[in-house]
Amino acid sequence: MRTEWIGKRLNDRVRTQMAYAKKGVITEEMSYVAAVEGLDSELIRSEVARGRMIIPANINHKRLKPMAIGLAARCKINANIGASALLGDPASEAQKACVSLKYGADTIMDLSVCRNADDVREAVIGVSDAPIGTVPMYQIVQDAKNQDPLNVSIDDILRAVEKQAKQGVSYFTIHAGFLRRLLPLVAKRKMGVVSRGGSLIGAWMSEHKAENPFFTAYDDILEICRAYDASLSLGDSLRPGCLADASDEAQLEELKILGDLTLRAWEKEVQVMIEGPGHIPLNQIEYNMKIERRYCHDAPFYVLGPLVTDIGAGYDHISSAIGATLAGMHGAAMLCYVTPKEHLGLPNANDVREGIIAYKIAAHSADVARGRKGARDRDDLMSEARFNFDWNRQFELALDSERAKEYHDETLPNDSFKSAEFCSMCGPKFCAYKISKSLSEKHERD
Amino acid sequence: MRTEWIGKRLNDRVRTQMAYAKKGVITEEMSYVAAVEGLDSELIRSEVARGRMIIPANINHKRLKPMAIGLAARCKINANIGASALLGDPASEAQKACVSLKYGADTIMDLSVCRNADDVREAVIGVSDAPIGTVPMYQIVQDAKNQDPLNVSIDDILRAVEKQAKQGVSYFTIHAGFLRRLLPLVAKRKMGVVSRGGSLIGAWMSEHKAENPFFTAYDDILEICRAYDASLSLGDSLRPGCLADASDEAQLEELKILGDLTLRAWEKEVQVMIEGPGHIPLNQIEYNMKIERRYCHDAPFYVLGPLVTDIGAGYDHISSAIGATLAGMHGAAMLCYVTPKEHLGLPNANDVREGIIAYKIAAHSADVARGRKGARDRDDLMSEARFNFDWNRQFELALDSERAKEYHDETLPNDSFKSAEFCSMCGPKFCAYKISKSLSEKHERD
Repeated sequence: MRTEWIGKRLNDRVRTQMAYAKKGVITEEMSYVAAVEGLDSELIRSEVARGRMIIPANINHKRLKPMAIGLAARCKINANIGASALLGDPASEAQKACVSLKYGADTIMDLSVCRNADDVREAVIGVSDAPIGTVPMYQIVQDAKNQDPLNVSIDDILRAVEKQAKQGVSYFTIHAGFLRRLLPLVAKRKMGVVSRGGSLIGAWMSEHKAENPFFTAYDDILEICRAYDASLSLGDSLRPGCLADASDEAQLEELKILGDLTLRAWEKEVQVMIEGPGHIPLNQIEYNMKIERRYCHDAPFYVLGPLVTDIGAGYDHISSAIGATLAGMHGAAMLCYVTPKEHLGLPNANDVREGIIAYKIAAHSADVARGRKGARDRDDLMSEARFNFDWNRQFELALDSERAKEYHDETLPNDSFKSAEFCSMCGPKFCAYKISKSLSEKHERD
Repeated sequence: MRTEWIGKRLNDRVRTQMAYAKKGVITEEMSYVAAVEGLDSELIRSEVARGRMIIPANINHKRLKPMAIGLAARCKINANIGASALLGDPASEAQKACVSLKYGADTIMDLSVCRNADDVREAVIGVSDAPIGTVPMYQIVQDAKNQDPLNVSIDDILRAVEKQAKQGVSYFTIHAGFLRRLLPLVAKRKMGVVSRGGSLIGAWMSEHKAENPFFTAYDDILEICRAYDASLSLGDSLRPGCLADASDEAQLEELKILGDLTLRAWEKEVQVMIEGPGHIPLNQIEYNMKIERRYCHDAPFYVLGPLVTDIGAGYDHISSAIGATLAGMHGAAMLCYVTPKEHLGLPNANDVREGIIAYKIAAHSADVARGRKGARDRDDLMSEARFNFDWNRQFELALDSERAKEYHDETLPNDSFKSAEFCSMCGPKFCAYKISKSLSEKHERD
């Protein structure tokens, strides 16, 4: 369908959703998103024009089903996949992409740092109807002499960004806000720079004694984004990597710069979201959501977790889903999942599943807490099915139907028990629902 | 040790911690708790006297290591175990108790509803140095003719409570606040009564057209509590079983009654905590914590989750840990865990482990968010170990050391990699910590 939509716009010089929105045009992508979200298409247009919502939809990702990231839309989740030098290949990453989509990822980032990253990316884009994001710096350093970030030039950067844009990448994380003047602030921290892209940029600036090359090349990058309608995800190089570094000067100074870069992108009609932390104690999350809106002019906030403790290794999908839910309630537009392997190793397909479901819970619960229209409908249907012992309907409504059925059936001895009006928790005599139902029936009789 | 402590108090008529606290006596239990919590023992005494903190420590649980539940103390977690009619026996439940203690449960509730519940309880108390809680009504109905709650008398109730008190149970959940006049409110709900004990009481009141027998027998129950220093956990029969029923009239009316019962218990120097929901949208959690303090005179709040969505079946340890963390931040004193099997079946030992760790994360993160003294120390040590690639120290500091090591090692090909200064996520060339460390070293040189 998108081929047709874009075909009609062939002669337009700038083909970003924001450019159309500013001209008052409701694109097919906006109408599609409006239908999915149950919102008015004019609202979508005005939010995109204002920069409060983005539709990351590279014109070369033909299979893409458009989706929106912004406070007016449902809270979204992103799944990070990608091969490392030690593990993964195009097939394994395409499989992770499929798992991500099956369990409900709204976007997927391919963060491969491996020799054949081009092939991985192609495979991932090929199987996905969700927007794909990347961090171009990974490929750039991978391709550099000795894989040394110091051998990277601005030309290398622009070439790589253009290549990936042509491939159909819908959003780029670039670490353009980590300016040289912030380096001394990093030295004060417990954990320095924990963003992979940010650390590479830091090393580059530090060795070359020169300004961040993504900042220097920012206008040229915007031109590429204009041509393909690639969105920018302004990376938080200085996101805190532990509670001790949360909401510190380094983090907040970079956030201000991301706000300036947002305005520059909007001038060029390029869509922007802002990346956020990381590791944040629960009591600082609301503040972090508010300060982003202030510094970054309401550009959508795309947060990683945040983790609310540092000691959950092996369970950081949980420690981060806690922070993510509160972040979503206070206005984060997209939640980047964290898997149980975080801080320990590269996730496999099962870790991806665990991470996704934790974040589906987070995003959905945030939507419920914000009181979005219809957000609680599925919960209400589930509660009805539960009270009526309709097990199949419960499995259907669960975020992970297979898991729910597996757990239910696991503890019951035979098939007649599997559809019974009780489960192995209470058995036939002690089921509260059953007793309670007879209670209400009695109440109605009396 | 407790045998000696209690030996000295043999001649006292009332041996509850609250009775001593009110007389100005700092018991050995209070001193023990003060040392564990890093608080002044006079503060513990005054909190116990005021009813804002309880030390559930039945004089017959000799192995007990005293612990405190209250806002001034660290946030605690409880693990529910117990056999059902379909699954479990004394050995399996004792094993779950051991798993609970190993991973850090602060109290354990034995919720058995099975033929040999006495034996299960004895086995569980026998292996545990943490306080054990029960819901006496389960045993009472189990022992009643035809296992029919309608055949339960007040004498049965008092006999069972006394028997369990003698066995060493440190707190009893009794559903004394579900008064007959609340029955019409239940009929208005989507899910009625989802508390097992509550539904039994509802059935009893409804059939007998008489007031809640636990309410009627309340003074006699208090006398038993006085004699053994069993604490009361005033059950919320009308906790919401789904988001749709959250914070409704039924829930709040019962909570007010629990407040009245609290004052009556305090008059008799019996320690009390209040049980809370359940299923609550994230945006109503702070309100729920505040209203409990108001209605129940600051008695410690002991909440089940709450779950912030109804559609997480198979992952309800996560959907509830999210609510529990926010509840802890806003003042809940103890969090009752939920396992991945919630709504689906009886948890096994592995489900217990998953539930406990999710709740250790919740309680710890709540302590950090409340800014408790020293709460973040372990996080800071973890962050240092992480930045220094001290993997063994990281495993040591993780809430589940075995899991952390297993996940780390799983993705690495050989032993030399297992202690390397990178993991399989980024490999040797792209580790942000490594690059960041060279950055700070450079900064110090420059």
